[in-house]
Amino acid sequence: MSRFLAEQYQPLVAYTPGEQPTNMKYIKLNTNESPFPPSPEVVRAIGNESVRELRLYSDPTAGKLRKKIAEQYGVKASNVFVSNGSDEILNFSFMAFCRHGVAFPSISYGFYSVYADLYGIDSKKIDLTDDFRVDYRDYLNVGRAVVIANPNAPTGIAISVDKIEEIVKSNPDHVVLIDEAYVDFGAESALPLIEKYDNLLVVRTFSKSYSLAGARLGFAFGNSELIADLEKIKYSTNPYNVNRLSLLAGAAAMDEKDYYMQNCRKIQENRAYTTKALEDLGFFVLPSSTNFIFAKSEKIGGEALYLELKARGILVRHFTAELIKDYNRITIGTMEEMQTLVATVKEILTEQKRG
Amino acid sequence: MSRFLAEQYQPLVAYTPGEQPTNMKYIKLNTNESPFPPSPEVVRAIGNESVRELRLYSDPTAGKLRKKIAEQYGVKASNVFVSNGSDEILNFSFMAFCRHGVAFPSISYGFYSVYADLYGIDSKKIDLTDDFRVDYRDYLNVGRAVVIANPNAPTGIAISVDKIEEIVKSNPDHVVLIDEAYVDFGAESALPLIEKYDNLLVVRTFSKSYSLAGARLGFAFGNSELIADLEKIKYSTNPYNVNRLSLLAGAAAMDEKDYYMQNCRKIQENRAYTTKALEDLGFFVLPSSTNFIFAKSEKIGGEALYLELKARGILVRHFTAELIKDYNRITIGTMEEMQTLVATVKEILTEQKRG
Repeated sequence: MSRFLAEQYQPLVAYTPGEQPTNMKYIKLNTNESPFPPSPEVVRAIGNESVRELRLYSDPTAGKLRKKIAEQYGVKASNVFVSNGSDEILNFSFMAFCRHGVAFPSISYGFYSVYADLYGIDSKKIDLTDDFRVDYRDYLNVGRAVVIANPNAPTGIAISVDKIEEIVKSNPDHVVLIDEAYVDFGAESALPLIEKYDNLLVVRTFSKSYSLAGARLGFAFGNSELIADLEKIKYSTNPYNVNRLSLLAGAAAMDEKDYYMQNCRKIQENRAYTTKALEDLGFFVLPSSTNFIFAKSEKIGGEALYLELKARGILVRHFTAELIKDYNRITIGTMEEMQTLVATVKEILTEQKRG
Repeated sequence: MSRFLAEQYQPLVAYTPGEQPTNMKYIKLNTNESPFPPSPEVVRAIGNESVRELRLYSDPTAGKLRKKIAEQYGVKASNVFVSNGSDEILNFSFMAFCRHGVAFPSISYGFYSVYADLYGIDSKKIDLTDDFRVDYRDYLNVGRAVVIANPNAPTGIAISVDKIEEIVKSNPDHVVLIDEAYVDFGAESALPLIEKYDNLLVVRTFSKSYSLAGARLGFAFGNSELIADLEKIKYSTNPYNVNRLSLLAGAAAMDEKDYYMQNCRKIQENRAYTTKALEDLGFFVLPSSTNFIFAKSEKIGGEALYLELKARGILVRHFTAELIKDYNRITIGTMEEMQTLVATVKEILTEQKRG
């Protein structure tokens, strides 16, 4: 730390991204990426000509991409915001809408508390139920902004949209942000509610179901006034926030939604297989609506399993927080990757027993 | 504006990017983009395989690119920060280093005052001299952070590094940020001073001399502690700030620095031609060290010339601020574009005379 850093940021504990080791080739099940490549149209969209055009600035309004998204999701372009990853939307939303306090689950995406700390926002962290669920009743009339990942991470558990609606309805003077990064893998979207409620912001990403984690592309749906506020923050920080190639990739992906929704179904099948196989090995697996599962075993500790898997070339994500330290978050990959995972876990458990 | 936007942001006047009209094809001389495409290596680097790998997150440490930049510029990787455009570095720097006040020229890159307003920072806006120069003596012992574009925009005028050093030396307890977006077109860089002064941050971009405006890629040089502070802000807002393809493009560009420096020389030649030709038409042109010129004529007003050029398919940038409203900022393009510009200006002036 330099002696110049503003006092308010000195105690900050930044977000820790999942590890990206380069020392050897791992089966990467630790950062919830898609095992499937972007669709053929995306590959075609990024050709030599579009690379040559990188000499020109990108469109700060993201006009074409917003129009495509609006068409695909049945809303107006003025209801759509586009960003450099959904993290940027979360960042802008904490700046713009959460100054007078925010509530979010104590076990959720780790970045929520980082943003709250960054902006000195009073946060009410609400515990999950004993079975790791978000109880919507805890968020009724909380008198502050609400941020909920639905499905939640790293638990993978979703709540239904009628419960989300109760939360939105009971906090009419505060923004309710629903982070739907994983919604395409089996949960219900709150998108239809944006017409009815001016305080609902639905945040999405191209990183998971659209196989574009490396393109850094997020989007959000909301009342056009909420979207205009996000635009104002964008034009006051980084107007050209999305590069040309990612804009092209996103627009092309919208033209092949079927391909991506088919991949989501494959992930669901592979998830069912993996859940069953781990349960057969004695694991407890939370009911996931995402492209990952959250699982623990009484036969081996969470950190021990993480380390044993890593030593065998498989990366999963382990969190050290007390309440979830027995678990690992395992991304759902291809069927082949899942079979390797299951066989490796079996091998580790057998060695444990012997040892 | 929604009723949810934090009070502090409600009065914000965001930055206005240069216009990007799509209604017809213009000769675009309004946003200081390069007329030359990225180098062959950049085009090769972004192939089908790299697009398929967009399913994976980008490297949040930007390790390979930082290493390449460090090698090319003769510093350590720990002295290099990489960002989603240099605007992001400016944003982070205003957050991190300018809380107790900042000084910058009253005529300069318009975003400086936007950032100051965004974070409620007290800003001392220092007027240029009558001949539109930054007088370094105005920045000695100012007791606050200093931000200077060198060369300055939209004037195009540079100051020498020994004067920059005086500013850095006389403000040892505050960060001095030198925004060198245009330095490759004929000015002297303050980079060699980062070893000597821990309060100097030198900001660069791939948008101008590296023909990658649409890739959104900026970089900065400084003491490793300053760089660590910027990393801390990045990891607290958007760790995966640069996408995979832009990281590849930047690294490939570093391998062909000769190509880009040759383009810079062409721009300098075209600038000399354009300056002379406009002076021959009676224009007053400020001495530019950038890829644009700032020029006025007593025969036609700044806004009138801008509008007449636009009507004829040529976009230049006009600013409405009182002190510079007679001028236009004209990006230096290819020789052919410059010849068209000069011929068109001639035509406009002839018509003016007749009218």
